[in-house]
Amino acid sequence: MTDTSIFPDPTYKDTVLAPLFEGVKTHYAGHMAAINRAHLVMLVETKILSAQDGRKIAQALEAIDAETDIAALTYTGEYEDYFFFVEAELRRRLGDLGGALHTARSRNDMDHTLFKMALRLRAEAMLDQLTTLSKALIEKARAESNTLIVAYTHGQPAQPTTFGHYLAAMIEVLSRDGERLSAAIDNLGHSPMGAAAITTSGFPIDRTRMAELLGFEGPLVNSYGCIASVDYVTGLYSAVKLVFLHLGRVVQDLAFWSSFEVAQLYVPNALVQVSSIMPQKRNPVPIEHMRHLASVTCGRCDMVVNTMHNTPFTDMNDSEGEVQQAGYAAFESGGRVLELLTAFLPASSINAAKVRRNTDAASITITELADTLVRDEGLTFRQAHEIAAHVARNLDGAPLSEGFTTFQAAFQTATDRATVMDDTAFRTAVSPENFVALRDRIGGPAPAALASALDDSARATQTLCTSGDMRKQRISTADTSRTNAFTQLLEI
Amino acid sequence: MTDTSIFPDPTYKDTVLAPLFEGVKTHYAGHMAAINRAHLVMLVETKILSAQDGRKIAQALEAIDAETDIAALTYTGEYEDYFFFVEAELRRRLGDLGGALHTARSRNDMDHTLFKMALRLRAEAMLDQLTTLSKALIEKARAESNTLIVAYTHGQPAQPTTFGHYLAAMIEVLSRDGERLSAAIDNLGHSPMGAAAITTSGFPIDRTRMAELLGFEGPLVNSYGCIASVDYVTGLYSAVKLVFLHLGRVVQDLAFWSSFEVAQLYVPNALVQVSSIMPQKRNPVPIEHMRHLASVTCGRCDMVVNTMHNTPFTDMNDSEGEVQQAGYAAFESGGRVLELLTAFLPASSINAAKVRRNTDAASITITELADTLVRDEGLTFRQAHEIAAHVARNLDGAPLSEGFTTFQAAFQTATDRATVMDDTAFRTAVSPENFVALRDRIGGPAPAALASALDDSARATQTLCTSGDMRKQRISTADTSRTNAFTQLLEI
Amino acid sequence: MTDTSIFPDPTYKDTVLAPLFEGVKTHYAGHMAAINRAHLVMLVETKILSAQDGRKIAQALEAIDAETDIAALTYTGEYEDYFFFVEAELRRRLGDLGGALHTARSRNDMDHTLFKMALRLRAEAMLDQLTTLSKALIEKARAESNTLIVAYTHGQPAQPTTFGHYLAAMIEVLSRDGERLSAAIDNLGHSPMGAAAITTSGFPIDRTRMAELLGFEGPLVNSYGCIASVDYVTGLYSAVKLVFLHLGRVVQDLAFWSSFEVAQLYVPNALVQVSSIMPQKRNPVPIEHMRHLASVTCGRCDMVVNTMHNTPFTDMNDSEGEVQQAGYAAFESGGRVLELLTAFLPASSINAAKVRRNTDAASITITELADTLVRDEGLTFRQAHEIAAHVARNLDGAPLSEGFTTFQAAFQTATDRATVMDDTAFRTAVSPENFVALRDRIGGPAPAALASALDDSARATQTLCTSGDMRKQRISTADTSRTNAFTQLLEI
Amino acid sequence: MTDTSIFPDPTYKDTVLAPLFEGVKTHYAGHMAAINRAHLVMLVETKILSAQDGRKIAQALEAIDAETDIAALTYTGEYEDYFFFVEAELRRRLGDLGGALHTARSRNDMDHTLFKMALRLRAEAMLDQLTTLSKALIEKARAESNTLIVAYTHGQPAQPTTFGHYLAAMIEVLSRDGERLSAAIDNLGHSPMGAAAITTSGFPIDRTRMAELLGFEGPLVNSYGCIASVDYVTGLYSAVKLVFLHLGRVVQDLAFWSSFEVAQLYVPNALVQVSSIMPQKRNPVPIEHMRHLASVTCGRCDMVVNTMHNTPFTDMNDSEGEVQQAGYAAFESGGRVLELLTAFLPASSINAAKVRRNTDAASITITELADTLVRDEGLTFRQAHEIAAHVARNLDGAPLSEGFTTFQAAFQTATDRATVMDDTAFRTAVSPENFVALRDRIGGPAPAALASALDDSARATQTLCTSGDMRKQRISTADTSRTNAFTQLLEI
Repeated sequence: MTDTSIFPDPTYKDTVLAPLFEGVKTHYAGHMAAINRAHLVMLVETKILSAQDGRKIAQALEAIDAETDIAALTYTGEYEDYFFFVEAELRRRLGDLGGALHTARSRNDMDHTLFKMALRLRAEAMLDQLTTLSKALIEKARAESNTLIVAYTHGQPAQPTTFGHYLAAMIEVLSRDGERLSAAIDNLGHSPMGAAAITTSGFPIDRTRMAELLGFEGPLVNSYGCIASVDYVTGLYSAVKLVFLHLGRVVQDLAFWSSFEVAQLYVPNALVQVSSIMPQKRNPVPIEHMRHLASVTCGRCDMVVNTMHNTPFTDMNDSEGEVQQAGYAAFESGGRVLELLTAFLPASSINAAKVRRNTDAASITITELADTLVRDEGLTFRQAHEIAAHVARNLDGAPLSEGFTTFQAAFQTATDRATVMDDTAFRTAVSPENFVALRDRIGGPAPAALASALDDSARATQTLCTSGDMRKQRISTADTSRTNAFTQLLEI
Repeated sequence: MTDTSIFPDPTYKDTVLAPLFEGVKTHYAGHMAAINRAHLVMLVETKILSAQDGRKIAQALEAIDAETDIAALTYTGEYEDYFFFVEAELRRRLGDLGGALHTARSRNDMDHTLFKMALRLRAEAMLDQLTTLSKALIEKARAESNTLIVAYTHGQPAQPTTFGHYLAAMIEVLSRDGERLSAAIDNLGHSPMGAAAITTSGFPIDRTRMAELLGFEGPLVNSYGCIASVDYVTGLYSAVKLVFLHLGRVVQDLAFWSSFEVAQLYVPNALVQVSSIMPQKRNPVPIEHMRHLASVTCGRCDMVVNTMHNTPFTDMNDSEGEVQQAGYAAFESGGRVLELLTAFLPASSINAAKVRRNTDAASITITELADTLVRDEGLTFRQAHEIAAHVARNLDGAPLSEGFTTFQAAFQTATDRATVMDDTAFRTAVSPENFVALRDRIGGPAPAALASALDDSARATQTLCTSGDMRKQRISTADTSRTNAFTQLLEI
Repeated sequence: MTDTSIFPDPTYKDTVLAPLFEGVKTHYAGHMAAINRAHLVMLVETKILSAQDGRKIAQALEAIDAETDIAALTYTGEYEDYFFFVEAELRRRLGDLGGALHTARSRNDMDHTLFKMALRLRAEAMLDQLTTLSKALIEKARAESNTLIVAYTHGQPAQPTTFGHYLAAMIEVLSRDGERLSAAIDNLGHSPMGAAAITTSGFPIDRTRMAELLGFEGPLVNSYGCIASVDYVTGLYSAVKLVFLHLGRVVQDLAFWSSFEVAQLYVPNALVQVSSIMPQKRNPVPIEHMRHLASVTCGRCDMVVNTMHNTPFTDMNDSEGEVQQAGYAAFESGGRVLELLTAFLPASSINAAKVRRNTDAASITITELADTLVRDEGLTFRQAHEIAAHVARNLDGAPLSEGFTTFQAAFQTATDRATVMDDTAFRTAVSPENFVALRDRIGGPAPAALASALDDSARATQTLCTSGDMRKQRISTADTSRTNAFTQLLEI
Repeated sequence: MTDTSIFPDPTYKDTVLAPLFEGVKTHYAGHMAAINRAHLVMLVETKILSAQDGRKIAQALEAIDAETDIAALTYTGEYEDYFFFVEAELRRRLGDLGGALHTARSRNDMDHTLFKMALRLRAEAMLDQLTTLSKALIEKARAESNTLIVAYTHGQPAQPTTFGHYLAAMIEVLSRDGERLSAAIDNLGHSPMGAAAITTSGFPIDRTRMAELLGFEGPLVNSYGCIASVDYVTGLYSAVKLVFLHLGRVVQDLAFWSSFEVAQLYVPNALVQVSSIMPQKRNPVPIEHMRHLASVTCGRCDMVVNTMHNTPFTDMNDSEGEVQQAGYAAFESGGRVLELLTAFLPASSINAAKVRRNTDAASITITELADTLVRDEGLTFRQAHEIAAHVARNLDGAPLSEGFTTFQAAFQTATDRATVMDDTAFRTAVSPENFVALRDRIGGPAPAALASALDDSARATQTLCTSGDMRKQRISTADTSRTNAFTQLLEI
């Protein structure tokens, strides 16, 4: 078998190498430069390279960066990829010494380091968008602490609560989603550098120093795991998916609330598409767009996670360049959902008139009347419920607040005595304001309970922000150290 | 509640309208022009518009097309989207008459018509790639009809067969995948035009004529379904997913076959990435790239399909612009898999020496020895199997073909008589060539059986090509008719 | 390395073999008996076995069946699985001859034949449930051809149509889903028997006869494909998933329609869960149950399909026993959705009063007023739309039908002349009945158009039924032939 | 519209109510009893119920439990479900007082509390299985710290390492998966009780006490969130999925390692299925079973998570009974994978002879030769690599260790001087033992580095165990407190 074929096959070049090269240009060239510089610093610090050699290589790297317009590069197939392009440039300038930068490292550890550096930026930005949304919602929830809404279960009006209380429920889920996301970002925090091809190196490298120079918490321990483990990817995208899966459920409520017939949520003109011919048809399409963008984001996360399915632990391409880049679209679409929701919810408001109409039509305070009879009239639950149900059934379209006479008669019939309640007490007992005010338990809608819960949520959000800030600080400190250390090399 | 806000909210503009506009420019502007022209022709033919009005609108459309550099348009928010941009241009030139083009139609039916037109191009191109692969594989299978390989089950060597026979198995799956894809393309073949907003129109439109002018088989019947049904999307992406799910399984076999230790498949240098330091390490990375590109393609298909989940039947945005465009990436990555595999498999070859080595080491023809003893020596199955198993166990590393003496003794011991086979007959009985030659049943690897099966596959592929050609012909005929009819309008 | 361990390891026995054995007892024992009998018939017919041997084996099979209470068997680990249990019984009764039944076949071809036989029953039953639903919906749609509803887009009232028209849209999707399902069932119609382990057999088996005796259309050609291809599984579950993905979208509409505030759909008491205390709160929970059962069904289909992802083409366990059985749950949950919907929709009705209320409140006939002005008053579209919009904006809560005076004035202002319409003509122009009646285009809601579309759907459903009946007839014919041929063996 | 239909519709009864009833019997009856008792205790402690009433209800609950054989109950439709059955029993015995147990609670908060109680048992058991596997792997890794294997990348032999080092990589992933799972279990730790229907209650309930009596850390705050949030479900199943997605990758390595040609992993007879006729064909099918069981588990997790997609935040059935129960199958199949792997890996061993064969054939220590030349001979990288590559190319099938002469000559040619290495030094430089011993960096395979990493992993596993133990202790303490408090009620 004589094989005279020469790499790369043109189809392979077109379908794989060229697209990869474009991706590297856009996403990784900057991170690769950082790794090159950090690695050089470490090689000199550990005396694997002499200071003189280090200086020459540092100067060449500076020159290559200065002279290369990365965005303008076109893939020719001459070099397998961008990495080899840089290496060839180094050799062109330094001869054999050009290869010394690659001592004690490999494409394998470099690649997963690059991917983590690219992911942590995106993930941290998404966490910022998430906490910005949280803060906007907390502010909105405080402002709407007394704004009554109809609370639904099974799609039917069930009880009164406040818009603030509803938002607080959503905020608590968002907080937990933020915690999951933040934990997943923490899992990006360990550096693969030094794993080299698989097993670390025979050279006395300093993995901890490399981690520090690149803004990681420390090295990821097992060197085979450094290049084979994909849980930093799958864990992150799983966490991202949940954010949007859960937001999508809120979006479905918003769609229902803003329907013409329910109309509990008023969406302002700035966020409504109308038809010139049907001025009464207000389509709050941002809601639909948030729904499908959230769905698409979930789908993109699944795509990345499921790509790892049944791949060998120690193969690597399934978690590398192409797949990593395909995943970034999830941050793009997800980011749009977060931003749009951050604009949408604060701008929207509750239509109090419609809430009152629906509250009345559905008699949703009726359970509180029964509870009141138990507490204040000493009735058994059965008696109390029977009287309340009788009232609800016999309102003839009037709101429950007008039902005192009906109630009085039902009470008399059921108990053979008169109620101690008068019309005012009755109106209070069935008013949504009273309903809410009474529910001052942990997690309830009464103002004090809600304020306390929102304080908790604000603290949780602050904790998320602090974690993110510390991580970002670590990276920015590393950037400074690395630049300083590299500059020192030049000056040796 | 006074609402002084003005559409569009800047965040909505940035996160939804501007991205949509970019998508329309790239993907739909041409199809929208075709629909505009067909609709105008139909309105004039049905006398809903007069010939004079038709001519004026036709001229304006021509002028707008001539004067607009679509690629250069930037979204300003002045018009909600590209459709309104065109409509505004018409009104600017024609006054009120400009609105007449929109008689008896709606964004709803137009949008789903656009999407079908965009999808059918991509799907048809993918079917072409698939049949190109099929043909290449059939040709390869014919050429490799006598090329022995080890056939594996449970990852272990099991029996000899030929590379052609293996490829034929793969081709039959690909054929059925092609049929599923072709059926899904047929499901793109009915036109929503005329459904208007939901319910058709009070104007005497001709839906059949519209379908014809746009290259559809006919109108999609139920008008509510025209805008609400998404099964043309979900059916298509489900079919596409299966292509790549199934190819991904073949790719896993290729990965195994091309491993250093198995080495049954030789991948030529043009498709192998090597390391300068480890010249013996040949990484056939195209295989890995096909695997993850296939996975990503499956994931993108799922993303589109699952976006429809739990959306209301009669909401539409979940199946429109953004989601449609997100889906196109599946055709891009899937197309790369098909092209790469079409280059890869014909270029690869079987390493006969390794096949022989593995065949011998694993004694994979041993079952045929037992069957021979049943047929030619009249042994019971148990006796035959016991003798064969005894031989296999006592080869001491020699190939089975060298085992005549061992066999002779075992036969004697088990049956108390001498075998009628001589060394030559024994070598034949255990030779892989004989093994294959004997299996001349329907679907077996013997040359005649395989040739017949490949003829069937070639016919099936041809049928797929013919279906595709007829559909493409229908569209190209429609393009001509539409252009002619539109030109006639100009000349009235 | 001395290995004194003995199969099976107790954990393997408990976690794999015992569960598999239970599954075989429940799902496959009957099909295995059919295969055994058909194979024996074929072996005798092809003279691979003598008539005498055939008779002995047939008698033993009869005896084993008569004497074995399959349901009562407990897995002991003595035999690897149920197949070996039967084989051991044969050997116990017949000595070496017991093994002859396994001539020219293998667990591999038997297993996939079993799975197809088990799947075709379930899939055919589901198709029956689907066509039963189709027929019920067609009948309901005919009965509701004149029942007005509000048609929604983007969750907002848009136009009037009829319940029949809506159902017809749903039916057309269901029909196409049925066609996809039926095509997938056709793909179960080829028999793997005769593929043996991988490559067919050196014995002169008759694969076509085997296919016939087991109710298949014919043999599946490529023998490696017979045991390696999984597209009969993935194709089927993909088709099943789409049925429930699409039904789930209708279910979301039903949820919205049956909400308290919209109330367009009346769900009868038999299908509503109420609270004793809140008699006005009617929860149409079957809708929610259909939603999650549909979702779970989709998820189960995905589970099966995605299990095949990245498995080697020529490994088999990923598509065998355990996974097959896990998949059956999709037929169970999906079947419940189909049956529940078949009970639910015909039992539900449209609340005409609420439809009228919502129609009036949303002025959803306003576009027809504009169209009428274009057609009957010769206005331009812009003029007509401006007048209509003016009317819609100035109704002050009155229904559009009461808006003649407002219209008259607006017309006069806009055109400087009086309208030719009188109050009656105006009421007609804006009446939902007129709106629907005018839309007599292909696929429109007007009675004639709808009746014609429903006739088409009835024919499509009938075609599905006929395909299913023919397939079931083929199987039942095979059952008879097989039994006869086997009985003849006994009597030789 | 007169509606004379009576709940439940027979189809609804058969397709929904009866299956739900069976599920409650199996999965929730015990937890419901615990909630009933805890709630009663709390009602008496907060004086919402008097001690006397509390005692009567407590006695009735005791009697009902004693007299009801839950497993024997058949669903009749008389009561909507098991909850109503118990309530009816209470009323039958206590009259109106029977209803008092339901004061200040609802099916809504009860249900999600039940689900959390059922899930935490399963999830904790799975975490136990996971840590058991971790410990077994750590032990195995320590025992195999010096066992050489070939490490693969891109499916090709790349470098030597040890089995212990490979397992340590796997263990680190498993540890992080355990942490994700443990965090998800923590998220089951807050009690919904007291949320009542949506908004808590007007009665002075003590949510913290309820949480304590049921073994929760505390109440889940927002009451609407208590019944609407599903992230305790989605977060858990997302975490479970990752465990099996990642294990499935290791399983793919095992499949490759145990192939006939690679043969690096020896699977003992107890875990291998053989064919009587092909004694040399050893199928390590547990590997395949682990693969598909892991896939099915992933699929079941996805099914649950995706069922929540696009459901309204405030609808509940999508996350309740049926879906919860469908999810439990993931714990069942996943548990089998964990148990089987815990049996499989310790029982398997490395075939040193095959490792040596493959190591030699692939010259996988060649990079270390080059590194040695750089370090000990002061060559540039290019020179060193050229010499090493030359040696690798010219071995003519001999193992690298025999290549000293070839090396000597190549060195001389390249450098124009003699190497300082002698044959012994050369053999050391290319020996896998030396290769491993030199790699004593953090995370490397050298014994000290590995031992330290395994110590870290052991600590991490212990931390997981401690967290689980504390949670289980909390529950068991709660069980005792609840029983005591309830017993006290009886004795009042």
